[in-house]
Amino acid sequence: MSKLKIAVLISGNGSNLQTIIDKIEEGYINAEISVVVSNKENAYGLTRACERKIKTEIVDKKTYPMKKDRNKKLMQVLGEANVELVVLAGFLEIIADEIIEKYENKIINIHPSIIPSFSGKGYYGEKVHRKVIKSGVKVTGATVHFVNKETDGGPIIMQKAISVNFDDDTRSIQKKVLNIEHEILPLAVKLISEGKIEVVGNRVKVK
Amino acid sequence: MSKLKIAVLISGNGSNLQTIIDKIEEGYINAEISVVVSNKENAYGLTRACERKIKTEIVDKKTYPMKKDRNKKLMQVLGEANVELVVLAGFLEIIADEIIEKYENKIINIHPSIIPSFSGKGYYGEKVHRKVIKSGVKVTGATVHFVNKETDGGPIIMQKAISVNFDDDTRSIQKKVLNIEHEILPLAVKLISEGKIEVVGNRVKVK
Repeated sequence: MSKLKIAVLISGNGSNLQTIIDKIEEGYINAEISVVVSNKENAYGLTRACERKIKTEIVDKKTYPMKKDRNKKLMQVLGEANVELVVLAGFLEIIADEIIEKYENKIINIHPSIIPSFSGKGYYGEKVHRKVIKSGVKVTGATVHFVNKETDGGPIIMQKAISVNFDDDTRSIQKKVLNIEHEILPLAVKLISEGKIEVVGNRVKVK
Repeated sequence: MSKLKIAVLISGNGSNLQTIIDKIEEGYINAEISVVVSNKENAYGLTRACERKIKTEIVDKKTYPMKKDRNKKLMQVLGEANVELVVLAGFLEIIADEIIEKYENKIINIHPSIIPSFSGKGYYGEKVHRKVIKSGVKVTGATVHFVNKETDGGPIIMQKAISVNFDDDTRSIQKKVLNIEHEILPLAVKLISEGKIEVVGNRVKVK
């Protein structure tokens, strides 16, 4: 079976990117990362990619101040790399509708909560965990989902929960949630690469 | 330690009531059920209570068509039984503000989802699971929380998650969720009866 060509989009540390790189090298995922795109030039994930000789691209506000030009550049980068799956791994920018249309059910995102809780506009990054703690919930988790035009609203591929204790803080929650992100994101990529994920309406069937 | 006096409020089958009865008889919970109140005269939970010689009261629309009169009667029943904890176990009626005020942090409810997902006005009973399935989430669960004036908005005592599969239907989800309701509701009652639950702002500390 030919290897699935992936783009991984990041904005920061890129620990999810690292997990995907590792799982590909271990042979757990039959795929190759064609390109890593960052919208921040100082994202540590770029270094991780560079160390493994993976092509990197920076599509940032400094070089492309206009959102329209960033979209155009991103579309071009994905097209040139013949990407079959786009993985948003902590990419803190809304994907333009035209890209979503072109890559329908081919863009996945990892969100650090159990969607629909703590999701939608305004819920990103560490802010999610702060709101989790403030709310007093005893369970949170992570979600891998397809990206559609509704923020965090696309078909859900996989979710996993973790416990929240009274003494937890943003940092400890983030650590626990990241652990499960590193489990379910590679698993979702693996299943997609093996053709085992089918979208049925707004629901996902794992074959 | 003296036994905590409990009222259990039901509207139907009363399987959560049964679990509490069983756990008290096993000695798992140090409490006694002073009264079981139903707002439906044909609720099977009334039979369960009767079989164990637990006092029952029916506070229904037929006898008390006015909401105000039902509230008054309910308040009277709880008062006469010297109730220290009110457990809403599938009680499908909003508790009046005056009762919530009198029994502040002494009324708990079991909700068949991971609050804040699938909670609030319009989310009750089987409807919750129908919405869960329609939404395509891969995780749902149950929540035990204190009741305040905001529907499903009081401090969360306990939550537990279960997996949702593509082939699940309302019935199978309900069964899985009920299994964890029967686990976390008695545990919450036990911890309250042992003085191990502390409300801190909108959050709950388990001591």
